[in-house]
Amino acid sequence: MNTPAPKFGYELKATEGKARRGEVTTAHGTFQTPAFMTVGTAGTVKGLTPDQLRLTGAEVVLGNTYHLMLRPTAELVARHGGLHKFMNWPHPILTDSGGYQVMSLSGLRKITEEGVKFQSHIDGSKHNLTPERSMEIQDLLDSNITMVLDECTPYPATHKEAADSMRRSMRWAERCRKAFRNRDGYGLFGIVQGSTYEDLRKESAEALIDIGFEGYAVGGLAVGEGQEVMFEVLDHTVPHLPEDKPRYLMGVGKPADLVGAVARGIDMFDCVLPTRSGRNAQGFTRRGAINMRNKRHQDDHRPIDDQCSCMACTQFSRAYLRHLFIAKEMLGPVLLTIHNLAYYQELMAGMREAIAAGTFAAFQEEFYRLQAGGDIEPLD
Amino acid sequence: MNTPAPKFGYELKATEGKARRGEVTTAHGTFQTPAFMTVGTAGTVKGLTPDQLRLTGAEVVLGNTYHLMLRPTAELVARHGGLHKFMNWPHPILTDSGGYQVMSLSGLRKITEEGVKFQSHIDGSKHNLTPERSMEIQDLLDSNITMVLDECTPYPATHKEAADSMRRSMRWAERCRKAFRNRDGYGLFGIVQGSTYEDLRKESAEALIDIGFEGYAVGGLAVGEGQEVMFEVLDHTVPHLPEDKPRYLMGVGKPADLVGAVARGIDMFDCVLPTRSGRNAQGFTRRGAINMRNKRHQDDHRPIDDQCSCMACTQFSRAYLRHLFIAKEMLGPVLLTIHNLAYYQELMAGMREAIAAGTFAAFQEEFYRLQAGGDIEPLD
Ligand SMILES: [Zn+2]
Ligand SMILES: [Zn+2]
Repeated sequence: MNTPAPKFGYELKATEGKARRGEVTTAHGTFQTPAFMTVGTAGTVKGLTPDQLRLTGAEVVLGNTYHLMLRPTAELVARHGGLHKFMNWPHPILTDSGGYQVMSLSGLRKITEEGVKFQSHIDGSKHNLTPERSMEIQDLLDSNITMVLDECTPYPATHKEAADSMRRSMRWAERCRKAFRNRDGYGLFGIVQGSTYEDLRKESAEALIDIGFEGYAVGGLAVGEGQEVMFEVLDHTVPHLPEDKPRYLMGVGKPADLVGAVARGIDMFDCVLPTRSGRNAQGFTRRGAINMRNKRHQDDHRPIDDQCSCMACTQFSRAYLRHLFIAKEMLGPVLLTIHNLAYYQELMAGMREAIAAGTFAAFQEEFYRLQAGGDIEPLD
Repeated sequence: MNTPAPKFGYELKATEGKARRGEVTTAHGTFQTPAFMTVGTAGTVKGLTPDQLRLTGAEVVLGNTYHLMLRPTAELVARHGGLHKFMNWPHPILTDSGGYQVMSLSGLRKITEEGVKFQSHIDGSKHNLTPERSMEIQDLLDSNITMVLDECTPYPATHKEAADSMRRSMRWAERCRKAFRNRDGYGLFGIVQGSTYEDLRKESAEALIDIGFEGYAVGGLAVGEGQEVMFEVLDHTVPHLPEDKPRYLMGVGKPADLVGAVARGIDMFDCVLPTRSGRNAQGFTRRGAINMRNKRHQDDHRPIDDQCSCMACTQFSRAYLRHLFIAKEMLGPVLLTIHNLAYYQELMAGMREAIAAGTFAAFQEEFYRLQAGGDIEPLD
């Protein structure tokens, strides 16, 4: 780049209750918050070209360190100019630390104070993921937002288990901060752990703030605890986070999770749900979820949602989409992924506008009313 | 439509030797010949949106009657406004008769003078495909170019087998002509059979011309006879076809087949090769075929073809495409299909320009020179 990169930063533009409307600036442009980050696991949002992805309204993509470090390797991505250039996504990118997926490799991994030793699920090769190595990999990928390596504490956990796990994650967070290469337009996010324990969440948030990060994530949720418990944890965690930094709820969620978490002061989300569900014929709409394989769509000339402006809804009928899924045609997953992502982005845009206009309370009411009403009536 | 549909027609614009540059007019617009028709088997070109398909340069799509009659059924497509509207392809569409695929169902089908009785490969349901039913189905699909039901004579065949099969196909062609609903902007093509026998090909062509069609196809080729025999059959068949009607070589083929057949007076082609190969990591280029999974591409920052203007070549490296195929990511097949189709369309466009300019002989020489030279040298 010829012009110097802007500083990484968060601007709070408006609030309504705890809900926040803001903007995050990175070396690769800005994105508006509350933001839904589309998951592009292995350097691609499955089935979509970057042009199609951009048309869904996506402003920021999440890449998975675990997948990319194994294949094609972070070093190869770096030789090709970083992940933005490799996958042709010139906009902001966040990468996870690799920890979550490594620790899910039960039997193939071993956690110590140093880090995590694990075997690749692809070829059994042995790797050592430490806080320092995770920072190096995310630097090689040229990620705008680097996440600290932490342990996503399993649920449920005793207070002692949660405390031990959280405190090690805090020691790792400090090592990550030291190893992270500070540079304009790039930021490092800490991750609050502590399971469902209010005192541990507070201790974790304070430990991270002491170290100092460009953003703060809430981790260890969406692991089976249910929406009610998740919201409780947010209720007693978010108040401990700084006002002037973005807040990221990792791995969440369903549309109603996003709305409830925004109401509790969260700014950023990521989840595989719209993409994975799209491949499996589940569509998300303002009126709830629908199964595109359902026979009721067989002769339905109407779009998935007549108010959605995505390619799937403006160009094709439910009957056509159902045909594609029944005939196992690739275009079915592609189109429904496009629709689901567009729906998620429209939902986020709606929340942003409502917060800015001071109408977020009414927005939420209308959201729940439509979701509860269910899909449009079938045709005769 | 508010304006009356134009008459179906073929305009011969230029010739060089036997090669022809022309234009076909249909109720859904024109397409330029020599033309490559992209195969959209079940109402979709696998993995591509109509927008992406159009950007490859495609002007006309082929639909498969066999697949569509079984699923979602021609009647359903008709209720949704025809295939153009159902799949959102407002440009010309040609459909095959269903015969070729039905007759490939060995053991599940029985041919009589009446037609072909067969069982669906999907659910075992019983169907009866007659010349009249094939016309009805293609009418329901709203196909601009309807193909007569014929038997693609198996190869090799004795003279008697080929004659018997061809003569029944000619009787069927007459029944198709009677059953076809004549209307502006829509045409019916006859299909010359006769295996590799010059006298039978001549007899078949003359029989079809007696009946009278809007276009003439050469069938029964690309069934294992090899390029040399195929070209011989074209050499002694094409001279019997009318000058003022389009000529269609069915199911062909590789780039060199297209160039050789255009040189022999063929105007239209269809083949699954660019799409099916694209899904299987085989790319076609001016310099021959390449395997995108090959390790030589692993760290290659160059595009598939630096002179290709497709999305795959202008936005991505060979290294990225290889990564997608190795990681079994859907975007790999999508991008390579786009490239292959763009390459085929560029090849056709190059031939059209060359014939118009009177430089087709030189074009062919350069084509064979580049193909023989092979791929660019690997990087060190
Ligand atoms: Zn939509
Ligand atoms: Zn290309």
